[in-house]
Amino acid sequence: MIINIDWKPDKTSKIPIYIQIKEYIHKKIINGEWTVGMKIPSQRKLAELLEVNRSTVMNAFEELIADGFLEGNTGNGTRVKNNLWSLFQTTSPPNWNHYVENGIYKPNLPTIQDIHKVEPQTNIIRLGTGEPSPEMYPKDIMGEVLKTLSTKIEIMGYEEEKGLPQLRKQLCHYLETLGINATPSSILVVSGALQALQLISLGLLRGGSTLLLENPSYVNSLNVFQSLGIKLANIPMDRNGMDTSFIKSYKRRYNASLVYTNPTFHNPTGNVMTLERRKHLLTVCEEEQLPIIEDDVYRELWIDTPPPPALKSMDNNGSILYIGSISKALSPGLRIGWIVGPEQVINRLADIKMQTDYGSSSLSQWAVTEWLESGKYVKHLESMREALRLRRSTAIRVLQNEFVDIAEWTVPSGGFYIWLRLPPTISIKELFYEALAFGILLNPGKLYDEQSFHYLRLSYSYASLFDLEKGIKKLGQIIRKLINN
Amino acid sequence: MIINIDWKPDKTSKIPIYIQIKEYIHKKIINGEWTVGMKIPSQRKLAELLEVNRSTVMNAFEELIADGFLEGNTGNGTRVKNNLWSLFQTTSPPNWNHYVENGIYKPNLPTIQDIHKVEPQTNIIRLGTGEPSPEMYPKDIMGEVLKTLSTKIEIMGYEEEKGLPQLRKQLCHYLETLGINATPSSILVVSGALQALQLISLGLLRGGSTLLLENPSYVNSLNVFQSLGIKLANIPMDRNGMDTSFIKSYKRRYNASLVYTNPTFHNPTGNVMTLERRKHLLTVCEEEQLPIIEDDVYRELWIDTPPPPALKSMDNNGSILYIGSISKALSPGLRIGWIVGPEQVINRLADIKMQTDYGSSSLSQWAVTEWLESGKYVKHLESMREALRLRRSTAIRVLQNEFVDIAEWTVPSGGFYIWLRLPPTISIKELFYEALAFGILLNPGKLYDEQSFHYLRLSYSYASLFDLEKGIKKLGQIIRKLINN
Ligand SMILES: Cc1ncc(COP(=O)(O)O)c(C=O)c1O
Ligand SMILES: Cc1ncc(COP(=O)(O)O)c(C=O)c1O
Repeated sequence: MIINIDWKPDKTSKIPIYIQIKEYIHKKIINGEWTVGMKIPSQRKLAELLEVNRSTVMNAFEELIADGFLEGNTGNGTRVKNNLWSLFQTTSPPNWNHYVENGIYKPNLPTIQDIHKVEPQTNIIRLGTGEPSPEMYPKDIMGEVLKTLSTKIEIMGYEEEKGLPQLRKQLCHYLETLGINATPSSILVVSGALQALQLISLGLLRGGSTLLLENPSYVNSLNVFQSLGIKLANIPMDRNGMDTSFIKSYKRRYNASLVYTNPTFHNPTGNVMTLERRKHLLTVCEEEQLPIIEDDVYRELWIDTPPPPALKSMDNNGSILYIGSISKALSPGLRIGWIVGPEQVINRLADIKMQTDYGSSSLSQWAVTEWLESGKYVKHLESMREALRLRRSTAIRVLQNEFVDIAEWTVPSGGFYIWLRLPPTISIKELFYEALAFGILLNPGKLYDEQSFHYLRLSYSYASLFDLEKGIKKLGQIIRKLINN
Repeated sequence: MIINIDWKPDKTSKIPIYIQIKEYIHKKIINGEWTVGMKIPSQRKLAELLEVNRSTVMNAFEELIADGFLEGNTGNGTRVKNNLWSLFQTTSPPNWNHYVENGIYKPNLPTIQDIHKVEPQTNIIRLGTGEPSPEMYPKDIMGEVLKTLSTKIEIMGYEEEKGLPQLRKQLCHYLETLGINATPSSILVVSGALQALQLISLGLLRGGSTLLLENPSYVNSLNVFQSLGIKLANIPMDRNGMDTSFIKSYKRRYNASLVYTNPTFHNPTGNVMTLERRKHLLTVCEEEQLPIIEDDVYRELWIDTPPPPALKSMDNNGSILYIGSISKALSPGLRIGWIVGPEQVINRLADIKMQTDYGSSSLSQWAVTEWLESGKYVKHLESMREALRLRRSTAIRVLQNEFVDIAEWTVPSGGFYIWLRLPPTISIKELFYEALAFGILLNPGKLYDEQSFHYLRLSYSYASLFDLEKGIKKLGQIIRKLINN
């Protein structure tokens, strides 16, 4: 488990460092941020995080123990013993551990938690991160958009259930360019595609029901369905996408309620479902009356040629809930996505959205409206594709130069990811921590499929071009070292 | 059930209106927005919504029936029979009704659904709405903030788990002015206080556990806890706030896990928990090791004198999860709130937040940072108080002039609400629809307490000053009419 700390001692101060550390811990305890009974980070860990000698931390701990605030300090770790008040009291604080450990929702997978903790660190080369690079962030155009909004927005109250009407109107126009016909009342604005999945899990399914999905799948890295007792049944993939010949029998075997697919520039494999496969998927699902969630957040990011049409554009009877997002092509920080589907389903999801967070940020909704309406978004997509083309060739070039004998991959035709297969002799867990020691953050394939323990999801979207080249090269060296051990 | 429609026929067009309506419905069906088997709005309802004669709608329906798209049209309503494709197919679409009706989450209370549907309508006087009036929206200052941000924001990626570090730092300073000491790592930025409750329900409780709360309570109008199988046990209130003498026995009787309170300018009663009561609440809960959720979203909005200190500022051992929000004092559309509590709890909630929506809008987080950092927020609070003082006196003046013999109320010392008690002979349901017919939207007390069926939550925060006066006067007349019937 990786721990973060948001403070560092001031090495230029006249106050001795161990006193600063003591006061820092003391304050946490007095504030009730570290509660009585809580296990605190070890001396070794704190020394590392605060970049001081272990003996300095030990001095601080000793004084806090002498003062009665901490106890333990043996193999079992150090705990908060008292705070200012508990010394004079006979009561003890609530047993928060009990609450934290027993809540309904599952915690994130430990590796994902670790990844989230490392990400804020600077000087890390993130080779697995699935978002556009800061290098590609259109700061100036976003600046223009914000300037326009500074005079345009008349009011920012709670928005309509389905989202800002102006945004839904723009989305209709935009979706039309993808061959998807919808009116504003069958569109729900959400805070990113992840929230779309969250709303679907809360609104359309029951505990015990089953979702069919590609394996590997982005959804396997989440607990959004599992936390509510919904089961996942994995359908194998080949290079043409989900193997749809399984659907009929799986539907029966698992009494499945829904199919989830990410057909275009699939996370994590980069695969694109062929047109033929798409048609087959639609036919089978119609026959089986199985609705489909089409997660299409990478559609715009083609590099070579536009991908086959969205399933939704071929949906003849409202079987598909279509999910899009502004995250991958423009900015994840805006937290704006959308769901398109039959009106009664959209009404239901909108009602749940209102119960979850009363709608998405107006400011973000206005910003996306402006990006779409002004044509800036479509123009931006062109530069994104250009930038991704360069990044993909950089990554592939380094792989071809340095990885031919240690890995296998297919060149993706769009999106962010290369699904890198490593020799089964390598422990990806070991590789993860070894790379981290060299300042490289990876995404193990296992997050997306239990069986893919010899895969990495390599992303060419995030690191700077310079770091991308340097990082992948270094990764090759680390892998070689592990092979030779 | 109130229905909305996002389209109107073009009465200036040369295309006959019934053809326009026919084409509108046809498009919905072809797009799969209205699915085969779905019940569509009645002729009467459509005529009303589209502001046309019923016979015009009937003409459109007849043609659609003749073409095979619609069927029924009897007492049982009209349904979609076919779409272009189903005419040539033997399969039928998924049974979406089944999904919509069987999902885990409960739908909003029908009255709340209706309220959400009426709200977007213009020319409605909203006498129950709990948000600051468009009249109070600081458009120019928000414009300045956006201009500043247009050059300040360097990148908008996925944010850190607990939210933008700069915002959490500003929140620390701000909370300090409320007597609450916290470091950034024990603050979680959320998309409004409602999401805070949602995260707590998912992260800290189990199905079957019980929450103690004031009665009436804002939380009774939600399904955020109940949808996950968490029970609510109502504790009576008096004018000093929650009657804390019940807590010990209720804790035992219901094996309660948490106390929820909204102690300051309580929604819906406007009450303020006295200092003495606050101290007693803290003592009892410490003795019982019962954690408290303190929902303090109205704290800043005092009109007469500042309210007693937050429970959290007197929290000696980390028993309290403190919830704040920018919604009531500045803008609900920003969707920014915060939770302050013991670090291990904040870590848990942050992890769930990441699984729900990957964090709140960066743009909104930056905006709130700027409001706080620049001092604009604190300055804005002064004008808010000024504006609310004027609104409160307007509302109270009209009440005193027109309602003395038909209602009872206490003058609130801050916040948005007057808890208006009407004669038990009046049906609030009838009043709700009667007022709506006059363009006035109300909030029935029953939303907040099953037993408060003769109460209204009157809000002086939303309607324009002019409408506030006009609306309350009209309300008096409607009530009188109902009494005399
Ligand atoms: C397939 C897929 N769906 C959804 C998401 C979530 O994206 P958003 O930022 O829109 O919530 C991601 C991002 O990781 C993704 O890869
Ligand atoms: C007591 C109380 N808590 C929370 C909320 C939700 O506010 P937010 O907009 O911050 O989600 C409200 C608003 O209605 C409220 O009255």
